Amino acid sequence: MRPELLLVKERDKKIMSLKGIEALLSWDQETILPEKANDYRSQQMGLMSSIIQEEATKDDFRRAVESLDGDESLALEDRALVHYWKRFFQSNANLPISFVKKEGEALGRSHQAWLKARSDNDFSYFAPYLENLVALSKEKAKIIAPDKSCYDALLDLYEEDLDKKLLDPLFDDLIKSTHSLMDKIEDKEIDDSMLYQSYDERALHSFSLELNKRMGFDNSRGYVALSAHPFTTMIGPDDIRVTTRYTDPSIFDPISSIVHETGHALYDLNANLNEKIAHSSIGQGVSMGIHESQSRFWENMMGRSLAYWTYMYPILQDYIPSLKSVKLDDFYKAINKVKPSAIRVNADEVTYNLHIILRYKMEKLLFEGNVEIRELPELWNKLSKELIRYDVKDDREGILQDVHWAGGLFGYFPTYSLGNLYGAAFRSKLISDLGGPDNLDRILESGNWSEITCWQNENIWKHGGIYSPSKLIERVTGKSLDANAFKVYLIEKYSRIYDL
Amino acid sequence: MRPELLLVKERDKKIMSLKGIEALLSWDQETILPEKANDYRSQQMGLMSSIIQEEATKDDFRRAVESLDGDESLALEDRALVHYWKRFFQSNANLPISFVKKEGEALGRSHQAWLKARSDNDFSYFAPYLENLVALSKEKAKIIAPDKSCYDALLDLYEEDLDKKLLDPLFDDLIKSTHSLMDKIEDKEIDDSMLYQSYDERALHSFSLELNKRMGFDNSRGYVALSAHPFTTMIGPDDIRVTTRYTDPSIFDPISSIVHETGHALYDLNANLNEKIAHSSIGQGVSMGIHESQSRFWENMMGRSLAYWTYMYPILQDYIPSLKSVKLDDFYKAINKVKPSAIRVNADEVTYNLHIILRYKMEKLLFEGNVEIRELPELWNKLSKELIRYDVKDDREGILQDVHWAGGLFGYFPTYSLGNLYGAAFRSKLISDLGGPDNLDRILESGNWSEITCWQNENIWKHGGIYSPSKLIERVTGKSLDANAFKVYLIEKYSRIYDL
Repeated sequence: MRPELLLVKERDKKIMSLKGIEALLSWDQETILPEKANDYRSQQMGLMSSIIQEEATKDDFRRAVESLDGDESLALEDRALVHYWKRFFQSNANLPISFVKKEGEALGRSHQAWLKARSDNDFSYFAPYLENLVALSKEKAKIIAPDKSCYDALLDLYEEDLDKKLLDPLFDDLIKSTHSLMDKIEDKEIDDSMLYQSYDERALHSFSLELNKRMGFDNSRGYVALSAHPFTTMIGPDDIRVTTRYTDPSIFDPISSIVHETGHALYDLNANLNEKIAHSSIGQGVSMGIHESQSRFWENMMGRSLAYWTYMYPILQDYIPSLKSVKLDDFYKAINKVKPSAIRVNADEVTYNLHIILRYKMEKLLFEGNVEIRELPELWNKLSKELIRYDVKDDREGILQDVHWAGGLFGYFPTYSLGNLYGAAFRSKLISDLGGPDNLDRILESGNWSEITCWQNENIWKHGGIYSPSKLIERVTGKSLDANAFKVYLIEKYSRIYDL
Repeated sequence: MRPELLLVKERDKKIMSLKGIEALLSWDQETILPEKANDYRSQQMGLMSSIIQEEATKDDFRRAVESLDGDESLALEDRALVHYWKRFFQSNANLPISFVKKEGEALGRSHQAWLKARSDNDFSYFAPYLENLVALSKEKAKIIAPDKSCYDALLDLYEEDLDKKLLDPLFDDLIKSTHSLMDKIEDKEIDDSMLYQSYDERALHSFSLELNKRMGFDNSRGYVALSAHPFTTMIGPDDIRVTTRYTDPSIFDPISSIVHETGHALYDLNANLNEKIAHSSIGQGVSMGIHESQSRFWENMMGRSLAYWTYMYPILQDYIPSLKSVKLDDFYKAINKVKPSAIRVNADEVTYNLHIILRYKMEKLLFEGNVEIRELPELWNKLSKELIRYDVKDDREGILQDVHWAGGLFGYFPTYSLGNLYGAAFRSKLISDLGGPDNLDRILESGNWSEITCWQNENIWKHGGIYSPSKLIERVTGKSLDANAFKVYLIEKYSRIYDL
């Protein structure tokens, strides 16, 4: 093995180990940390991230990565690892320390300001902070990719090769097809009141754990806990953790949370079973978008399907006896109810992408168009009416809704919608490999889903970060990403549900 | 402020923060970590400890500490901080990296060997590893304190200024008085069968949490969890965590565990409320021995007293209704039953020190006498019979009983007994400050123990690591440590219980 490759592999393992420690600090903060320890914990996390940054930006490491770049004699997974670090050295590692410090301080202040603005429903308080963050992100974009437009540089940070040229037609296509579906559904009502009854948390948690296990989560390599916002994190190659919550009034929220997070977890758990990439930076999902496709595939495409609940519903009824008087079909319709609404994270499967497209359009304007920060709330509300067909009541359900911008995450939102599109494309290929939709249904109805997860593992999971998102989707489906599979999926599913 | 002092304070804060991260890794390992992640976690912990060691042994830090040493113009707490690091540079930091590596590897192998030997009840398997560890500790002792005898050097590592000259007469005194008490108790029997009934774990845990809170544990600055072996750890100045367990057949084991660990936790929680020392290496208990005195003070001297249970017993009976048929006095006697037994951690308050003295005598022989490793099991059994008056059945309850030696901890055991002696000395001064034992009883019987904890805080906790153990005990009690207070305490208490 070339000594440079050995150095890169060793350094990468060390950095992964340090990142796992950082992830533990964060996991503990969300699940256990005593209230008054929060500031100190933030300092500890800052300390860890500076240790990681120092380790990752050492000269010998950078030189080794550069010397290996383009070496076609390397094994596929080694080339992927070199590529991973090359991307790092082109982006994060290229930022001067003075910039990183300035950005870090700005982010700390912004988060506090966003919290206050949101609680007071007063955007003007957050506005100067947001303006500053946008300016910093423009500065960042210019440093990391001087040849690209600002927003394309940011998009690529979260999803390799993603740009406006790809997203614009995809999103236009989605708007059109979603609106056409919404027109047909119009004011057809579904009764979902049975989801909003009070429930026994302990019973529902037992059901959640059963779902988690049934999907193939390995408790000897992971753990499930509670937190205010569900998330998945990797603390080590055999230590993938998910959280869920029981704070939403809907009985279905905890169910979709656990299924969603378990979808994420299975990706990392299985990538790390591939010895060639385990314990390394490519021993995990390849991108935000592909990761989200795995969680949303389970949460929505499997976990909100009739076949899935044909098996699971009687089990759920045993845990939550008050559902015994509700018919499967009524439950199925309720969990798929379509209704334009304010809050992205609670949106139904049909209108969800419109929430993303709204943010995408605003981010494009912020970075490449002409818009004043003070015009943003009104713009949000206008886009909400046009796209989602929802009248925003106040800035808390408008411009102040998400934490992302206060965290400097511009260009991140589109990966959520990519997740839906990738997910549907994978589903379509899975169905064709299984020999038709009835075969998928039969598997779901059997309650033994290993044929599905084996397919995911063979096609997606076990490759970890070896293939770029665009290469992966081509490799699996034979073509580049489009919105067709998702459009067909929605029309078929919702035509049946709403009898269109 | 002298720039060297500023450097020392900043570096110390950073190291404390890193040590907190290391403590979190360890806490998580004992409470949550998935089974298959154990090896990786050990690597992560090794990585953190090498980062800490690197930070702590930097030349500029050492030079700053050395330049401040002996500067009488410094504030008391700053002198203590300099002294703390001076001790470090004289001990750990003086060990060559080659030695640290050799010892680390030996410890890893020894722990595995001890586990296997213990499970197979085969000391000969562990013997060569133990021999190696003893040799390594002798080497270490010579490096860190070439002027001292080997064993004195090791004793001082865990308790400043502790040596054989101090321990020999104390322990001889203890043997004599303990045997005299045991002679009187002889075969007087106490029925403690009511402690060995099956119990509702959840109810007992609720009671544990009530005790923990009643002692003054602050849930906004700490957390209680479960682990195989109870322990207390400091992850940050406002983040002190304790664990307990419900695996012992005795109903009283979880109770004494939580009280013991909460005793430890209160020390660190309150030391860190003193702004002059908070977040620093001296913002925690000063030594193992003093720390243990705070836990055993609560566990035994308060938590096994009649006055304490006069208040707490009806509450316990509410949680564990099967105790309603048991009288307070019978319960009180049961939890104080004296019986020579095999296992140190389950020993009663009277015979406990004999277990420690046995190990002390063996360690002295190992380091400064003439004994072959292969003779150790027999020696253990002989000492057990002489000291504890217990016939050891096999090496699992003999030489292979404790994990300490497999972890290279020689010279550590005596701190447990010191905890008893310090604890009794503090108790005696507390009683005199309160105006007599009846006043202490009245406080315990009231269920509001803040007068006791305030006294502890004023006299012990808030000083953290400012005073050395020997200075602290003199400062509080007006004299140096002896066994008198403990002897008097035992005789008074057990004369009443056993009607001697």
